[in-house]
Amino acid sequence: MGSNSVAVVADLGESFGNYTIGDDAALLTLVTSSNIACGFHAGDPRIMDRTVADCVERGIELGAHPGYPDLVGFGRRLIEATEEEIRTDVLYQLGALDAFARVHGGTISHVAPHGRMGSIAQTDAKHARAITDAIAAYNTDYIVICQRGLLAEESRKRGLEVGYVFLADRGYGDDGMPVSRSHEGGLIYDPELIGRRSAQVVQEGTVRSVNGNVVPLGHDADVLLLHGDHPTVLENGTAVRAALDAADIRVTGLRDVLAEKAEKTEAALAG
Amino acid sequence: MGSNSVAVVADLGESFGNYTIGDDAALLTLVTSSNIACGFHAGDPRIMDRTVADCVERGIELGAHPGYPDLVGFGRRLIEATEEEIRTDVLYQLGALDAFARVHGGTISHVAPHGRMGSIAQTDAKHARAITDAIAAYNTDYIVICQRGLLAEESRKRGLEVGYVFLADRGYGDDGMPVSRSHEGGLIYDPELIGRRSAQVVQEGTVRSVNGNVVPLGHDADVLLLHGDHPTVLENGTAVRAALDAADIRVTGLRDVLAEKAEKTEAALAG
Amino acid sequence: MGSNSVAVVADLGESFGNYTIGDDAALLTLVTSSNIACGFHAGDPRIMDRTVADCVERGIELGAHPGYPDLVGFGRRLIEATEEEIRTDVLYQLGALDAFARVHGGTISHVAPHGRMGSIAQTDAKHARAITDAIAAYNTDYIVICQRGLLAEESRKRGLEVGYVFLADRGYGDDGMPVSRSHEGGLIYDPELIGRRSAQVVQEGTVRSVNGNVVPLGHDADVLLLHGDHPTVLENGTAVRAALDAADIRVTGLRDVLAEKAEKTEAALAG
Amino acid sequence: MGSNSVAVVADLGESFGNYTIGDDAALLTLVTSSNIACGFHAGDPRIMDRTVADCVERGIELGAHPGYPDLVGFGRRLIEATEEEIRTDVLYQLGALDAFARVHGGTISHVAPHGRMGSIAQTDAKHARAITDAIAAYNTDYIVICQRGLLAEESRKRGLEVGYVFLADRGYGDDGMPVSRSHEGGLIYDPELIGRRSAQVVQEGTVRSVNGNVVPLGHDADVLLLHGDHPTVLENGTAVRAALDAADIRVTGLRDVLAEKAEKTEAALAG
Repeated sequence: MGSNSVAVVADLGESFGNYTIGDDAALLTLVTSSNIACGFHAGDPRIMDRTVADCVERGIELGAHPGYPDLVGFGRRLIEATEEEIRTDVLYQLGALDAFARVHGGTISHVAPHGRMGSIAQTDAKHARAITDAIAAYNTDYIVICQRGLLAEESRKRGLEVGYVFLADRGYGDDGMPVSRSHEGGLIYDPELIGRRSAQVVQEGTVRSVNGNVVPLGHDADVLLLHGDHPTVLENGTAVRAALDAADIRVTGLRDVLAEKAEKTEAALAG
Repeated sequence: MGSNSVAVVADLGESFGNYTIGDDAALLTLVTSSNIACGFHAGDPRIMDRTVADCVERGIELGAHPGYPDLVGFGRRLIEATEEEIRTDVLYQLGALDAFARVHGGTISHVAPHGRMGSIAQTDAKHARAITDAIAAYNTDYIVICQRGLLAEESRKRGLEVGYVFLADRGYGDDGMPVSRSHEGGLIYDPELIGRRSAQVVQEGTVRSVNGNVVPLGHDADVLLLHGDHPTVLENGTAVRAALDAADIRVTGLRDVLAEKAEKTEAALAG
Repeated sequence: MGSNSVAVVADLGESFGNYTIGDDAALLTLVTSSNIACGFHAGDPRIMDRTVADCVERGIELGAHPGYPDLVGFGRRLIEATEEEIRTDVLYQLGALDAFARVHGGTISHVAPHGRMGSIAQTDAKHARAITDAIAAYNTDYIVICQRGLLAEESRKRGLEVGYVFLADRGYGDDGMPVSRSHEGGLIYDPELIGRRSAQVVQEGTVRSVNGNVVPLGHDADVLLLHGDHPTVLENGTAVRAALDAADIRVTGLRDVLAEKAEKTEAALAG
Repeated sequence: MGSNSVAVVADLGESFGNYTIGDDAALLTLVTSSNIACGFHAGDPRIMDRTVADCVERGIELGAHPGYPDLVGFGRRLIEATEEEIRTDVLYQLGALDAFARVHGGTISHVAPHGRMGSIAQTDAKHARAITDAIAAYNTDYIVICQRGLLAEESRKRGLEVGYVFLADRGYGDDGMPVSRSHEGGLIYDPELIGRRSAQVVQEGTVRSVNGNVVPLGHDADVLLLHGDHPTVLENGTAVRAALDAADIRVTGLRDVLAEKAEKTEAALAG
């Protein structure tokens, strides 16, 4: 399970019109990869244009962050959409973001479904199928960022690579899955602890749960997610980067991380 | 000015959610080319998906029909947007529609700005620049459907081909430009007359104005537009096709029409 | 259970911008009462203004038809909103419609939650509380149109009168509740049968179920709903009115129906 | 022209969903009156509910701040709407806000059209008529906050009281009208100067223009507007309140200010 490299990602471009959310300028200095809102739960064409331009300029991987068409709910409320509605909503957003990637000379490398659409897709087959159908139909080179569950399974069925994410600033249960924000210990406020946990999960594949047990994550930690709405997100990011450096873990783009992992697997099989 | 070929286009995919507008099924039997709404003034991801699929299946050219973000106004009201707003709104819509073209194995061949955004771009430099900047940045192969004016000029400046449109069911003034719908004679209700005018404008480059004068259109008639909200649109389309056939005018896609025109021009220059 | 009077209601004003749904002009000749969309799942300020004006002119009772903020889904998809979100969304819509009632000299007499918001409120306590909290806070004179269930219970807890609805064109199960549209017999296509069932449910309080059993509705039939999207809605409405007339059932506004029922109850208690 | 009392107003409740704009908590300590967004250019039903509750609790006058239906443009872009569209959009928003006033035991006392809708109404007759038609039809007790121009004229024609506003933090031209923000001196950054100007305009009816001339405002200064997006809005508000206190100017609600002015006028006429 141990790895020598990991990517760092954050949700970016979630401002809208006259409204600003998140300190994107600071986050851009800390991440290797971006999840960029596509105008449905957040973001608008101007924000998308500037966010993509900023990422391309800094060599940050571009990722699409599609969500439900629910700006007032910020994509955090389940909408009982049909499979066709989910699939076509995702497809629409992939194309819209790709337009900005294209004009700025960039390439989208991954997709991370946002909010409730992303979380429900771990356990709801309709969502998992709809999302991965859209992605696979559009571009089979796209990596799907998710945790273990149906979204990961359906991705692999369609030949899509999976990049497993670890939520760096969140508490985990004994089952190796994040507990809810409202759970005691659900949000971690100590940047150094967040850094140590990040290094540990990459190297050991384990995490200390909210119950105090050291448990296996149950999947790789290919990419660490920093939540932009965490009150100390910049300190968290700085501490994570420092802890990874101290542990000699290479911080690089997700595509790189997965390529290295594939090489190792091949070598292991060959060996 | 005379030509042996012409394309026939209609605005398609302008339904939304539970709302239906236009008899797309019938129009699909009459046109060579489509202007497909992209979700801002009309259309939604399901409608776009099905409309693109229908067009690809029938070999109908795909065109993007971007508009203002104004569903309740159907894109018919001027919005005093900035140049950046117009450019990025168009770019967003181009990418969104292209996603559906891509998954259905089709290619977008042209762009026809919708409603007030399209009409103002004939005389407003900001709109003309913003729209053509978006198109040229996204794909220089796209043809821009318009009348003479600033949009045509800015298109050519950016190396974009122009497909000149004649509004088959509308009255024209002595200046070779359509008069407003509310003007006497602004809407033509006789399908046969619409057919005869169509054949004449292709072959002679002239139109009988609302004042009774035969005047030059002032530009080619590369593509004839049928308005889907015209009360007798199907009769109009049928009459136009019959009149073109009777006059031995080839009805084909816009790209074909422009290619043939280019060949003729070259031959003329060579000759 | 038997009654000598009943109201007839239909959903009206569900058009939007350039989009038209339903034959409101015809429905206005058949109903005593209206459920008017409030701009969230359907309707816009112009449609609301004209629909209210039409109803006031004809003496048709005004009803608010609030729904989820989901135009593209027409309010038919569950949104997992919080209680505060549902309550304030309903309140907003009540006020918006009331503005048009006020300027046209009318009074809103009832509220009928639309689509999925309405159906889920029969069994979901959060929805039932949120909707009735909004209504009771705004105007305790408003009648709530619903079937038996939590929405009816919470209405009565807050002192709101309940008007029980029978879906005239829909099949019912042995439990006296409508079966889904997709169920065999879920939609009834014979206008005369719809008329006969309507008269029977008002007079006898019973309905022949999709299983062929004559079962009690389990609540009064104070108001009969005609679905505007039923393919033969006008024939249905005409047949219902004829059947009610033939059975000597008075067709009148819902407030009238409930007042008469209250008088009878009082008389029975006094007697 | 001189007066002993003035109201202080700010735009409030312009947040939306997950997005926050403005420091409403602080502004609530500085104002006598509020302009509350109604969900079209900003605001949502939750924000409206809480903002109204806060104002009622503190005895702050409630004002409606209707705008164009353009969230992404924050109501700052002209939309060439028809007179019917403007009128019904305003009416819808008045009713929606009034619902929250009603359930919190408050009363709306004034209307201040937002952004471009408000500024264009000073010179565009269609906007001025549409806005005042909506207000007068809904409630003739509402005061209209505006500068001199067509909106003031049309208000008076319909029997609506006018509350003249002075933009406390903005530079004015020699014509007694504010210059644009981008003009040199268009935004004033010195809180004390803003305070001094405020006291002067109330007492003397004059303002020092961006050209250095002391010019008459040309209308009363019944209410001073603090812009919530000004970088030093809290300092501005504090300085304004201090300057008014020092000059013995009573700071009270706009209705009070106008009542006092009317009494004086009557007394003058009687005397």
